Amino acid sequence: MDAEQLREYGHQMVDFIADYYKNIESFPVLSQVKPEYLCELLPDSAPNYPEKLENVLDDIRRKIIPGLTHWQSPGYFAYYPCNSSTAGFLGEMLISGFNILGFSWITSPAATELEVIVLDWVAKMLKLPQHFFSSGQGGGVIQGTSSEAILVVLLAARDKVLRRIGKNSIGKLVVYASDQTHSSLQKACQIAGIHPENYRVLKTDSSANYSLDPKVLSEKISNDMSIGLQPFFLCATVGTTSSAAVDPLCSLGKISKVYDMWFHVDAAYAGNACICPEYRRYIDGVEEADSFGMNVHKWMLTNFDCCLLWVKDSGALIKSLSTNPDYLKNKASQENQVVDFKDWQIPLGRRFRSLKLWMVLRLYGVEKLQNYVRNHIRLARLFLGLIDSDPRFEVVAPQMFSLVCFRLLPPPDGQDDGNKLNDDLLHAVNGTGRMFISHTVLSGKFMLRLVVGAPLTEERHVEEAWKLIQDQASVLLGTRLPSP
Amino acid sequence: MDAEQLREYGHQMVDFIADYYKNIESFPVLSQVKPEYLCELLPDSAPNYPEKLENVLDDIRRKIIPGLTHWQSPGYFAYYPCNSSTAGFLGEMLISGFNILGFSWITSPAATELEVIVLDWVAKMLKLPQHFFSSGQGGGVIQGTSSEAILVVLLAARDKVLRRIGKNSIGKLVVYASDQTHSSLQKACQIAGIHPENYRVLKTDSSANYSLDPKVLSEKISNDMSIGLQPFFLCATVGTTSSAAVDPLCSLGKISKVYDMWFHVDAAYAGNACICPEYRRYIDGVEEADSFGMNVHKWMLTNFDCCLLWVKDSGALIKSLSTNPDYLKNKASQENQVVDFKDWQIPLGRRFRSLKLWMVLRLYGVEKLQNYVRNHIRLARLFLGLIDSDPRFEVVAPQMFSLVCFRLLPPPDGQDDGNKLNDDLLHAVNGTGRMFISHTVLSGKFMLRLVVGAPLTEERHVEEAWKLIQDQASVLLGTRLPSP
Repeated sequence: MDAEQLREYGHQMVDFIADYYKNIESFPVLSQVKPEYLCELLPDSAPNYPEKLENVLDDIRRKIIPGLTHWQSPGYFAYYPCNSSTAGFLGEMLISGFNILGFSWITSPAATELEVIVLDWVAKMLKLPQHFFSSGQGGGVIQGTSSEAILVVLLAARDKVLRRIGKNSIGKLVVYASDQTHSSLQKACQIAGIHPENYRVLKTDSSANYSLDPKVLSEKISNDMSIGLQPFFLCATVGTTSSAAVDPLCSLGKISKVYDMWFHVDAAYAGNACICPEYRRYIDGVEEADSFGMNVHKWMLTNFDCCLLWVKDSGALIKSLSTNPDYLKNKASQENQVVDFKDWQIPLGRRFRSLKLWMVLRLYGVEKLQNYVRNHIRLARLFLGLIDSDPRFEVVAPQMFSLVCFRLLPPPDGQDDGNKLNDDLLHAVNGTGRMFISHTVLSGKFMLRLVVGAPLTEERHVEEAWKLIQDQASVLLGTRLPSP
Repeated sequence: MDAEQLREYGHQMVDFIADYYKNIESFPVLSQVKPEYLCELLPDSAPNYPEKLENVLDDIRRKIIPGLTHWQSPGYFAYYPCNSSTAGFLGEMLISGFNILGFSWITSPAATELEVIVLDWVAKMLKLPQHFFSSGQGGGVIQGTSSEAILVVLLAARDKVLRRIGKNSIGKLVVYASDQTHSSLQKACQIAGIHPENYRVLKTDSSANYSLDPKVLSEKISNDMSIGLQPFFLCATVGTTSSAAVDPLCSLGKISKVYDMWFHVDAAYAGNACICPEYRRYIDGVEEADSFGMNVHKWMLTNFDCCLLWVKDSGALIKSLSTNPDYLKNKASQENQVVDFKDWQIPLGRRFRSLKLWMVLRLYGVEKLQNYVRNHIRLARLFLGLIDSDPRFEVVAPQMFSLVCFRLLPPPDGQDDGNKLNDDLLHAVNGTGRMFISHTVLSGKFMLRLVVGAPLTEERHVEEAWKLIQDQASVLLGTRLPSP
């Protein structure tokens, strides 16, 4: 590590990355390489002696970039987005430049304190209830991903109930969520040792736009209690992965109160929209929640990873996750003057992630972030209008936020349910390299998902995407219909 | 996100960070701020409108940097190191520049494939057994931290044994490790639902230099089995946190085989030294292990976080951690042509971490990395010699790798066991801001730990540290001894 070498190489790397963004539209959005492409291009051992930076950069251009799926491309419309921005990038530079470990307050007080402050800032932007602010028994913490956020609150809830009913009762614990809930809840249950048959996946359907029906929940709970099981955790979603459905937080929250269950709200993607007053209503009812999670790396211009989690009672987290070995003891922690975020998360070590979020908030300001989300929602609406104009397609779920779920209608001969047709269309469209969308299955229907959320996406990219989808559909329908 | 703005601001940030390293010796190594210092310096809401980069950088200089504990300072000798380097920093820039999510192969094939390749490279550098290479049933994966590495293998082991003896038997499962094992194992047990009374913390002492005695282990296992418990997981450490003790892998591994237990080796810090032929013997016996973990962010110049984990049977990990929702299905994964690392870890999303390790390996080469470790061990030996030259001090455990455990001897009047004296010395030394060491407790003795491991540390810094310790000791002893 030499400051002047870092300066020289760092400037080269900045130009490399700026050029990458400048040229990003020239790369296929979805990587078109075949499995194991890279092992043929790289040696099978590390070099013994230093290589030149130019050679490494050249390899990145020729060998790595072709193997990237370009999440930052304006033609990226798949899954949910993973945002990058100049401010987020600068923040990441600082994080790795300082390269501190903020596990306890003392290991870098600024890391802990800035995290507390910016989580309060965002809580205010979202108008979260007072109990999620640092001034009370709860507060916010940055996790890597929603998977970790859901896991830590599930553990806190598990241990809380087991302290009451006895540690041998884990086989009685029941978790509730809709069939639209992200797979990370299932994974968290596996990790926490919840018996698989006690994870209640509650069915949803198009009649309620794939949101969780409180009646279905109540019935299941009553049934489980009647056979001696112990309901303890309910997860609602604001913006499900498949169709961005919104579960009814108020009603669900009330049910969770009746049965003394931990109520977690996962708003990984759509929570970001709720910084706009006109979308805040989607998290009405969050007042009932014990915890609330949202990924600013998805849709608030903060580079991955940065998942915000707020809890009402941080003591429950700490009871489940704290350890206190001699070699980490220090005066500030022992005297309970400070927060030690190591006890709010799975890992011990932690990066100074709040720095990038702080830079995003300061360099853009709340109004710009609101307009950023609004623009994407406007573009999704534009796309919806385009679909509506072509009778060969149907919109399969209501547009929510910046997501549109649609599919190509199968030929009317009734031989085809359209699933293979749309799978073919997906591959045809993605195979062009001009855009990347992903799919889902709802009520047995295979459908395409187009999410507007990449920072570089403009109106013309949405229009081009639509044109491409139409063209590929024409080709497919042409080849599938017997020639006259 | 605008390429030219990123370029302009990126260059400014490179200079800012290079200047930080240039001036790093001017900052107190351990931050000297008081709890809640920052909330008085920052507003209580995010700004509505954009602020200027200069203002933010100015705040970082005036408000954030004073709250940092400078892990990259040459005067940093605490805990274990957290390495930064130009190559690691460039790698981090690229990771956040591309900002891809590599959860499944298809989401960026290069991310998965490069990870497989560089983990094989490092396995070769360490001469790991063939079953840890990607060519067989096992392979390597990058986790964030050792805590996560230990957790995922514990889960794999737990589920493997529960599949055999029934899922209601979790209360019977017993974990074994020495009392020197890192607290992350205790935390992993809490998370996995292992009953706290079934975590066997086996006592070590100075007679075997705080390494785990295989006889003690065997006895405990026999005892547990005789009362119907089920031993299933053994964790050995190469380079414990307190004194860098090395557990005897060969004997422990053989015992684990007899009882069909999962054998994990945690070499988070010291594993890095084993890339040198002369230190490789410390992991002799790793052939017996089911999994092996090491943090290149500690001592191989790779910026945090980057924990390497190798497993013998990746199938066991995948059985515990995989989920397969419709919206993530894709041809390459369905046809089992590729690795999807989402099923080897807790989170779904994952950064392209292999990129920074690859850059470190290529820009420095194996020989330089070996010499880097050797130099730190040499400096630790130098420090050991300095202690030996002053009869007021004692070395409390043998020097292992680049760690020295020592303490100031209490005055010979027998009134003082030296614990408070050394605690006072710790605070006096760290309070100068010139250096930062941490402490531990072994056999009831409070002792000081000096680890050489920061990339910028040179001989003069070790000598200055020693001088400072001597001076502060003189002051302390002077004030404590009655004047004649």
